[in-house]
Amino acid sequence: MSIYGESHGNGLGVLIDGCPAGISISEQDFEYDTSRRRGGGFGTTPRQEPDRVEIISGVYKGKSSGAPILLSFANLNVRSDDYKKLANIPRPSHADFVAKEKFSGFNDPRGGGQFSGRMTLAIVACGVIAKKILSGVNFSAKVLEVGANTNIEEAIEEAVAEKDSVGGIVECRIKGHGIGIGEPFFDSLESCISHLVFSIPGVKAIEFGAGFAFSMMKGSKANDLIISMDGKTKTNNSGGINGGISNGNEIVFRVTVKAPSSIAQSQQTMNMETGKMVELEIGGRHDLCITLRFPVILEAAAAIALADLQLINKVNKKIND
Amino acid sequence: MSIYGESHGNGLGVLIDGCPAGISISEQDFEYDTSRRRGGGFGTTPRQEPDRVEIISGVYKGKSSGAPILLSFANLNVRSDDYKKLANIPRPSHADFVAKEKFSGFNDPRGGGQFSGRMTLAIVACGVIAKKILSGVNFSAKVLEVGANTNIEEAIEEAVAEKDSVGGIVECRIKGHGIGIGEPFFDSLESCISHLVFSIPGVKAIEFGAGFAFSMMKGSKANDLIISMDGKTKTNNSGGINGGISNGNEIVFRVTVKAPSSIAQSQQTMNMETGKMVELEIGGRHDLCITLRFPVILEAAAAIALADLQLINKVNKKIND
Amino acid sequence: MSIYGESHGNGLGVLIDGCPAGISISEQDFEYDTSRRRGGGFGTTPRQEPDRVEIISGVYKGKSSGAPILLSFANLNVRSDDYKKLANIPRPSHADFVAKEKFSGFNDPRGGGQFSGRMTLAIVACGVIAKKILSGVNFSAKVLEVGANTNIEEAIEEAVAEKDSVGGIVECRIKGHGIGIGEPFFDSLESCISHLVFSIPGVKAIEFGAGFAFSMMKGSKANDLIISMDGKTKTNNSGGINGGISNGNEIVFRVTVKAPSSIAQSQQTMNMETGKMVELEIGGRHDLCITLRFPVILEAAAAIALADLQLINKVNKKIND
Amino acid sequence: MSIYGESHGNGLGVLIDGCPAGISISEQDFEYDTSRRRGGGFGTTPRQEPDRVEIISGVYKGKSSGAPILLSFANLNVRSDDYKKLANIPRPSHADFVAKEKFSGFNDPRGGGQFSGRMTLAIVACGVIAKKILSGVNFSAKVLEVGANTNIEEAIEEAVAEKDSVGGIVECRIKGHGIGIGEPFFDSLESCISHLVFSIPGVKAIEFGAGFAFSMMKGSKANDLIISMDGKTKTNNSGGINGGISNGNEIVFRVTVKAPSSIAQSQQTMNMETGKMVELEIGGRHDLCITLRFPVILEAAAAIALADLQLINKVNKKIND
Repeated sequence: MSIYGESHGNGLGVLIDGCPAGISISEQDFEYDTSRRRGGGFGTTPRQEPDRVEIISGVYKGKSSGAPILLSFANLNVRSDDYKKLANIPRPSHADFVAKEKFSGFNDPRGGGQFSGRMTLAIVACGVIAKKILSGVNFSAKVLEVGANTNIEEAIEEAVAEKDSVGGIVECRIKGHGIGIGEPFFDSLESCISHLVFSIPGVKAIEFGAGFAFSMMKGSKANDLIISMDGKTKTNNSGGINGGISNGNEIVFRVTVKAPSSIAQSQQTMNMETGKMVELEIGGRHDLCITLRFPVILEAAAAIALADLQLINKVNKKIND
Repeated sequence: MSIYGESHGNGLGVLIDGCPAGISISEQDFEYDTSRRRGGGFGTTPRQEPDRVEIISGVYKGKSSGAPILLSFANLNVRSDDYKKLANIPRPSHADFVAKEKFSGFNDPRGGGQFSGRMTLAIVACGVIAKKILSGVNFSAKVLEVGANTNIEEAIEEAVAEKDSVGGIVECRIKGHGIGIGEPFFDSLESCISHLVFSIPGVKAIEFGAGFAFSMMKGSKANDLIISMDGKTKTNNSGGINGGISNGNEIVFRVTVKAPSSIAQSQQTMNMETGKMVELEIGGRHDLCITLRFPVILEAAAAIALADLQLINKVNKKIND
Repeated sequence: MSIYGESHGNGLGVLIDGCPAGISISEQDFEYDTSRRRGGGFGTTPRQEPDRVEIISGVYKGKSSGAPILLSFANLNVRSDDYKKLANIPRPSHADFVAKEKFSGFNDPRGGGQFSGRMTLAIVACGVIAKKILSGVNFSAKVLEVGANTNIEEAIEEAVAEKDSVGGIVECRIKGHGIGIGEPFFDSLESCISHLVFSIPGVKAIEFGAGFAFSMMKGSKANDLIISMDGKTKTNNSGGINGGISNGNEIVFRVTVKAPSSIAQSQQTMNMETGKMVELEIGGRHDLCITLRFPVILEAAAAIALADLQLINKVNKKIND
Repeated sequence: MSIYGESHGNGLGVLIDGCPAGISISEQDFEYDTSRRRGGGFGTTPRQEPDRVEIISGVYKGKSSGAPILLSFANLNVRSDDYKKLANIPRPSHADFVAKEKFSGFNDPRGGGQFSGRMTLAIVACGVIAKKILSGVNFSAKVLEVGANTNIEEAIEEAVAEKDSVGGIVECRIKGHGIGIGEPFFDSLESCISHLVFSIPGVKAIEFGAGFAFSMMKGSKANDLIISMDGKTKTNNSGGINGGISNGNEIVFRVTVKAPSSIAQSQQTMNMETGKMVELEIGGRHDLCITLRFPVILEAAAAIALADLQLINKVNKKIND
């Protein structure tokens, strides 16, 4: 998977190499997941994009042909004027400052350029293909809490009232994937999932199974007793993974998403031309709780990691099968 | 970096390709970090290994020659009888079960084979080279708490008394690394650090900066105000990383390590030959708090990730410099 | 570099990741090289495509932004009916048979699908970027002979008269690239150039410097004497490469291109449905001497290999510089 | 596969990751191929090394365990004094000059360091594993001619008499590998074989099937007619590969090996300290026809490329099988 594009450029998409031939793929297949990701609801950006995929290559007569698949999305609803003044006035905790430094000022600053949350659309599209490769595997993610409140609507209303943004926690659960997925030493299942998940703008923490609570647990409580020949365990503190490899139980991980850095309140920041602190009022259209869009994005990231590792695992077992 | 070896085989080590020529490297350079990792203290395994590195290749007249560097460690203090009975009786929450399934029973079960915590010695050795590549960068990690207790000694004593093991939290801080390290879209600094960190046996959660606390924070509190031309921020909730790229402030991350799964108490598990639950008494020599060895391992993992990304970043900036 | 597309699909293109920021790139920059590759002349296919590049991402205000660059070409002049009957009647020495077997019949057979010589357009486009990265390096390729005849026009006329196709030899020379490019052990300069060159449909042999003639040479004749402090040699049998690394002299390699397998004469082949030999008359529009298009394609392949290796070489030298 | 080591250092070897579990591997298995490669015969170096492999990791109870396999060879018969004077007096057409430039003088110059032909021992050892993975595939390579003479012994005698070295041609043939191996677009079977083959010191040309003779052939003569349902062809000009993918017929390639650059005659070269031309008498022990050792090395290189691509091909076909 390689992604391309910018928030306010011509468009964005993903190039997928190595998809097995013979999988049914149509443009309709992408609608469900891309619509789950789309903004517009309460707490998400008012920018509306149809997010209709175009399959440019790699699919012939409705099936993957074995050639690289290019999935493309247009940017239609672009208002780049909103960003012009930000070129020298970096938003606090946003990628504006590092992007300018890293690329010596040649980066595209409009809408965050390649750092935009809009790029997750490409990940969701790739996830649709990954889920098809993993037929029989079930992915299910949901928002657990927002702003430490499990009443999500209430938490959003509070943030709106305060002209603020807010963070939250999303959990992803996976079933039906089998035993043995994950490669020692450096491609553990946790390694590969977290690698992808930390590419998503806004993620600052991840935990598997009991996660951070393990710090408080003794081994006698933390250990999951095996109670069947196929590895089913009595508890699932391990979140379905031992030694970096799936043990056949449900995979469980949770991700903390920070509050979007673009807020409606006025903030102070440094003007990089003058070296003086200035008052910043951010225009543009922004999510105030990007957490709400995360369930389908996490499912996609997990599916991509799992599809890659499952294909590799099958290679490893060749001799014995 | 590629690692090889097993806990109770001939030895283990690491092959490092791409180390620039001209760096001073001697066998003495490894002593400080490998001794920080070594067991033997209160709360760690009684197995004693000298852990003396041998530089097999890639160093000529005390400097890296540009050729691949092979660092090798012998296994001297091996008692494999301890593990014989475990072949069909997987320890709860250990890699025994998944290793056997994944490799169709051909895996080396002695001391956990390639899944042993002993493999982290290779990571620490590679970290020594990475720290040399990153001259001027400072790494500093420490145990924050064990078993939810910040009095670490007390927590260990309690676990010893209960014939149990215990988990904990380790924090790593990095200074002096500059701005611009990390590659969008899929090799964010958090992605690359977490990828390596989750390869270390026992890690179940990682957070950067404010981490899990971000779920409770509003944007107005979470945002770090830029207060100097070189990107210094007033607060450092971001842990030195925005948009997956270092912003020049201190990098901060914390890792949760679970209690070792091998405990002195008797446990129940499944006998995979008979399909019956059995009582398991684990012999062998084990850590009861592997957390205590983690500071130097986390420093090594972070240094390896940072060295790779720093070299890539220099390539990217070539045209402008 | 990842390429996508098919001969008779929506289009084709290339996704380039890792291009340094700040390089001037406009759509006009591609015209010279893409027009050198285009068919239509004597001896090449009558299929006419404008081959106008579209820069979809990665360029902002006329300069590379550091984000992935997607270059796209449309397929306009498509006549897929020409290929329908070939689905079960593989053309001799073409990829038809292997593509169907490899992808279990799901491959796109129209115009050879992803195996079409049209895909070299993506390589040429990527080569334009690579040449820009390698500013100061000069690439120059030409056809040496066609059908063992150095009078190229005469050789083509002969093939036309015989309703046949014909092969040839193309030579590429590179100057101005410096010393030290190429990575032992497995990424020698010859390895990386030949890897790319053998991806181009029709290539069956490659030689560097004196090449095949080395088999007849004694060491005393083959050796190139160094005659200056900067490594200039008296002869250049080595073709500018020793030990897989550029020695600063001109890089020289020659490639043999086979005659296109689609010929106007009638041929016999196997009908894969009936298992009977049949007479095959190939329709469609084909080159009769693809060799004529190769100079710019070889330049592009060499530039891509060189740009990658030059960036890696700079990383290696960091410590000493 | 990653290799390490130097000609006159502690030793050399290869680290193999991704070998499926359950393959029988013993140290005896390496003897046949390593002895085919070993020098000592007429025309090869008088340096004698036992070349006994040590399996350091990845094999348990005589079978691959799924963990990385480290194969190690000691250097016993080392006489580094022979090379001391060469530090500033590069041998013509040898890697001495480029190695010093590339690694800023930090390279190990003894016996050519990592550029030595001795490193091919690691490739041969890896080839033994690859051949085991490819059970049922038959590799057979032989020297076709030396110094344009098919009477090899006579050619060697002539070179000895002239205190010279001499080049030659080696051919490799492969059977029993099946259809579909090779990945478009950039990992064609020719690409992957040539990539590895050009890593071997001394190779300057490669051709597949009719190879360079294709330049003289018309399509009507060059095309291989398919005469059976499983793809058997009447002729095999394609050398068993169409579109970069194996077509099931015998794979055939030929390699030109140049005369070793270290010759017994006196030669002129540049003294890099004084900038003056000097007379060079090369000591040390050298092959005068390295071609003689090449058959087993080419088989190994081809087996490694084929094993990698065959595993990838199986992944691609998963959905349909």
